[in-house]
Amino acid sequence: MNPQKRLELSRLLSKLDRLNPDETLPIPDDTRAVGEAFRIGITGPLGAGKSTLINEITRQYREKDISVGIIAVDPSSPFTGGAVLGDRVRMYDLTLDEGIFIRSLATRGASGGLAASAIDAADILDAYSFDRIIIETVGVGQSEVDIVGACDLTVVVLEPGSGDSIQAMKAGLMEIADLFVVNKKDMKGADRFIMDLQSILEIRNHNRTHVLATSANKSEGISELLDWLENYFRQALANGSLLQRRNEQRIDRIKRAAETGVKRQLWEKIKQDDIIEFAEKGLPVRETARLLINGFIAKKG
Amino acid sequence: MNPQKRLELSRLLSKLDRLNPDETLPIPDDTRAVGEAFRIGITGPLGAGKSTLINEITRQYREKDISVGIIAVDPSSPFTGGAVLGDRVRMYDLTLDEGIFIRSLATRGASGGLAASAIDAADILDAYSFDRIIIETVGVGQSEVDIVGACDLTVVVLEPGSGDSIQAMKAGLMEIADLFVVNKKDMKGADRFIMDLQSILEIRNHNRTHVLATSANKSEGISELLDWLENYFRQALANGSLLQRRNEQRIDRIKRAAETGVKRQLWEKIKQDDIIEFAEKGLPVRETARLLINGFIAKKG
Repeated sequence: MNPQKRLELSRLLSKLDRLNPDETLPIPDDTRAVGEAFRIGITGPLGAGKSTLINEITRQYREKDISVGIIAVDPSSPFTGGAVLGDRVRMYDLTLDEGIFIRSLATRGASGGLAASAIDAADILDAYSFDRIIIETVGVGQSEVDIVGACDLTVVVLEPGSGDSIQAMKAGLMEIADLFVVNKKDMKGADRFIMDLQSILEIRNHNRTHVLATSANKSEGISELLDWLENYFRQALANGSLLQRRNEQRIDRIKRAAETGVKRQLWEKIKQDDIIEFAEKGLPVRETARLLINGFIAKKG
Repeated sequence: MNPQKRLELSRLLSKLDRLNPDETLPIPDDTRAVGEAFRIGITGPLGAGKSTLINEITRQYREKDISVGIIAVDPSSPFTGGAVLGDRVRMYDLTLDEGIFIRSLATRGASGGLAASAIDAADILDAYSFDRIIIETVGVGQSEVDIVGACDLTVVVLEPGSGDSIQAMKAGLMEIADLFVVNKKDMKGADRFIMDLQSILEIRNHNRTHVLATSANKSEGISELLDWLENYFRQALANGSLLQRRNEQRIDRIKRAAETGVKRQLWEKIKQDDIIEFAEKGLPVRETARLLINGFIAKKG
């Protein structure tokens, strides 16, 4: 991708934050149809080594001349400039490569807003011909789960023996994971951790969820991971499960966009002063809300 | 509270899950007006010792003959029967006390739904004359932040030196905390952790956020914590800040209830088949969503 095109792409991505939920994404006509790229959602708790892992995956994809777009939603990710715990990943060599594009998205309070933006950004990178799109989120909260759940494949990265991992299970990550990567596989207790994880998966009937072990900062297990990913895509494309998954995700996106849109219209019609006026009547919360909605519908009719 | 009344209260709380967002909470006329109780939101990462701390706080309140209602939203909490990591809190003596009522709420996927239910449950315990209401959540995700943010006072419990704590900072807990409790104060590095925490608070201009150290499983620092809480309530009541906070929270609750209500009405009018039919037109997601909303509004008029 030439510098001119990169600049155009950057500017387009910057528009995302200001886009209304019922506005159509402004993708130029001279780009590729969206849907060609494979999308990999990578999530997991802080400190599990997600960013180092993404660094290594990207490096290996580039060796095969496959281009990679990275969307980082994790505010603590070095990709977003917010490295914590001192283990800053050296990725200056990645950013000089024209086959790589890195975009960070800030965490916003608005529920659903961030998920919608991240998926829009993936669509844009897809249109701009990136072959693989990696979306990184930190594994807490519903909107992060929504984001990685909107990918073709969801990878949950865990570190052996941390309490975080149990929390990750609780946060519903087990339900969305297609693959668990146990990173830092040289750590003490890693084998035991992997066995425990496999037992939990078996008990919960997630037998088809795979577990791989890596050591990203030693580049160990990465080519096996890449093979697994590529094989997964090949199979899912061939047996139709990829298409089915995307169709279901599209329905979910439409629903979420409709909900965001209707909420926006609600607060366009009903101003803060109206709410305060209604609130001062001293009626119960739910009754006050009902009156507000009735007013919204009346204004609409 | 007599057994008859307890049973009535239990049944009322069970109705919460089936309540529509625009239905008024069915509180019997012979109860106290809602708003007498002080509400304490307690949150923090898994393993910080929240449940042990709540156990100790409740014990000390009971010694002063102050009644306590506990609402546990944390699925890993021993209050909800889901003790993990083996440190099950012994609270059988609490549950035999008529001045204590414990209610657990399951984590549901629906955004906003859980927060609304938790606050409703607090209103009901308030009406049934509990003096202090403690709401426990695990500190991840927006809905958990919403819940503790709806209390008169928000306590964030941290454990010295864990990576979780940094994650807690990132998750927006610093913004909502009125008090940080560093539990397990005897742990190595606890003093340093407290100093670091205070520095961060200073840098971020949260100078009025206090930090207290406790060791809940040794009952250390609990009476100081209780004094701090009661002093906070006394002052907030006297200088009007409690009333102002509650008024602002009421506006937020009304807004959230209106949003939930309008979404519910949207999906009552528009069925899954309609969505699939619209989706199959192959238009972009946002445009499809806009068409759906327009259909909703047309049906309304």
